[in-house]
Amino acid sequence: MSGPGRVGVVGLGLIGGSFALAMRRRGAAVCGVSRSAETAALARKLGAIDDDRPEALSECELIFIAVPALAADAAMAVAAKFMNPKATAMDGGSVKGNLAALARKNFGALAGRFVPCHPVAGAEKSGVAAARADLFDGREVVLCPAESDADAADFARSAWRSVGARVSDMDAAEHDRIFAAVSHLPHLLSYALVNQIDGRDARSRELMLRHAAGGFRDFTRIAGSHPEMWRDICLDNRENLLSALSGYRAALDALEGAVRDADGDSLFAKFDAARALRTAWAEKLKR
Amino acid sequence: MSGPGRVGVVGLGLIGGSFALAMRRRGAAVCGVSRSAETAALARKLGAIDDDRPEALSECELIFIAVPALAADAAMAVAAKFMNPKATAMDGGSVKGNLAALARKNFGALAGRFVPCHPVAGAEKSGVAAARADLFDGREVVLCPAESDADAADFARSAWRSVGARVSDMDAAEHDRIFAAVSHLPHLLSYALVNQIDGRDARSRELMLRHAAGGFRDFTRIAGSHPEMWRDICLDNRENLLSALSGYRAALDALEGAVRDADGDSLFAKFDAARALRTAWAEKLKR
Repeated sequence: MSGPGRVGVVGLGLIGGSFALAMRRRGAAVCGVSRSAETAALARKLGAIDDDRPEALSECELIFIAVPALAADAAMAVAAKFMNPKATAMDGGSVKGNLAALARKNFGALAGRFVPCHPVAGAEKSGVAAARADLFDGREVVLCPAESDADAADFARSAWRSVGARVSDMDAAEHDRIFAAVSHLPHLLSYALVNQIDGRDARSRELMLRHAAGGFRDFTRIAGSHPEMWRDICLDNRENLLSALSGYRAALDALEGAVRDADGDSLFAKFDAARALRTAWAEKLKR
Repeated sequence: MSGPGRVGVVGLGLIGGSFALAMRRRGAAVCGVSRSAETAALARKLGAIDDDRPEALSECELIFIAVPALAADAAMAVAAKFMNPKATAMDGGSVKGNLAALARKNFGALAGRFVPCHPVAGAEKSGVAAARADLFDGREVVLCPAESDADAADFARSAWRSVGARVSDMDAAEHDRIFAAVSHLPHLLSYALVNQIDGRDARSRELMLRHAAGGFRDFTRIAGSHPEMWRDICLDNRENLLSALSGYRAALDALEGAVRDADGDSLFAKFDAARALRTAWAEKLKR
């Protein structure tokens, strides 16, 4: 996108709302569609959108579908109903494997206009009230455009770049395997830790929460994430998530075995290797 | 402690070094003892200590033992060799269960002068180079003084308060059970996640690290912790850690079962409960 235009957003949560705010700041007109009239009204009040009529999507050169994974099918149907044949559509979901199939189902002959996108920009908070115009600034957006028209993919890329994102391409199946390991699995592990404390007797729970400190805070930050979004991601990327979990259990079993056997050398070696990899990763991020 | 005095620190890592810096800032003279001459020299250069002779411990009214858990026995022997009978000794370890027994072994008739303490102030970084005079400011310090002289416990409390810490008392066995769940277990889980990625083929590992984002960063921050310290904690608190891990596995099994069965309602309920508990905890921290 070279300059201001008309943009549609279907789904006004943190991601959709932030994209809308960023586009409005660039001078674009934004039509936002929500399943909730309250959310649409709030988005308008916050200055994220200036129109909430689904039929206004027909005037948009770009339609961004930003809903939880299992709602993508229905949201695409809404977009497909109104979309101009020359417009570009894209989504913002965290699982990409079945998006091309959903696009064929909903857009038919126009399926090439759809570009599967994953803005890697989660946040602890959710909902349009938490939306920020700079949410995508410096963040990564992964595109899986294998079945998209080249000009549609280019248009999606330029839209993401215009809100400050770095763009890269990936194979959809590989994307889902990689993100299962570094994103979806950690969320599951973090939810489980909080669940485990929640299941204790009242006194233990109270003591645990009173004495929980920085390690717990960091480890469980992602357990504050949107439960509907994460339910959908876990179900949508089920096979990869179960496979990543199986690999994780093997690593955890090895550590547990070393603790049980009081094998300090093995424990030290594994902790040291983890620290080295983690520190190198963090240093690289800084550069 | 009412004012400047003479303080000894055995073990000059992040915790010992930070305590030394804080005490020096208050005008105290600090004698610091390290198993490494290089570390002692660095501590002196950083202004954390002004004396590194073990025999100077005999002039200290307070001796702080700040070494990895499995080194506490040897460090206590050094302190006991020099300590003035009216002085107070305390440690800074994360496991408290066997400290009183170690104190009896090393201090004999003076065991009551020893106060088991746990400053809950970890950090990603370690070593005296990372020490900060304000590390304990606003942090919690747990005392387990069941077998300590009342005046020694009071002296330890006032020392911690003088560096800005909030002090509370706990039973040692309960302390170890609670911290296994909210601190030691999360460290093990975080190390396991990095180990699991480290064990992948080179291409997968590279892709995973390239696309890892905020969730991974938060979740694995504690995998940057000191491997020797955490090896010792895991071994020293082995039974409680294995028990906490067993409880965690039950919570993880429940989530895995819901993913495998595509039971969205159950998954949503568990994620939502975790988010509610986590958010309430974080809100309470802010107040």
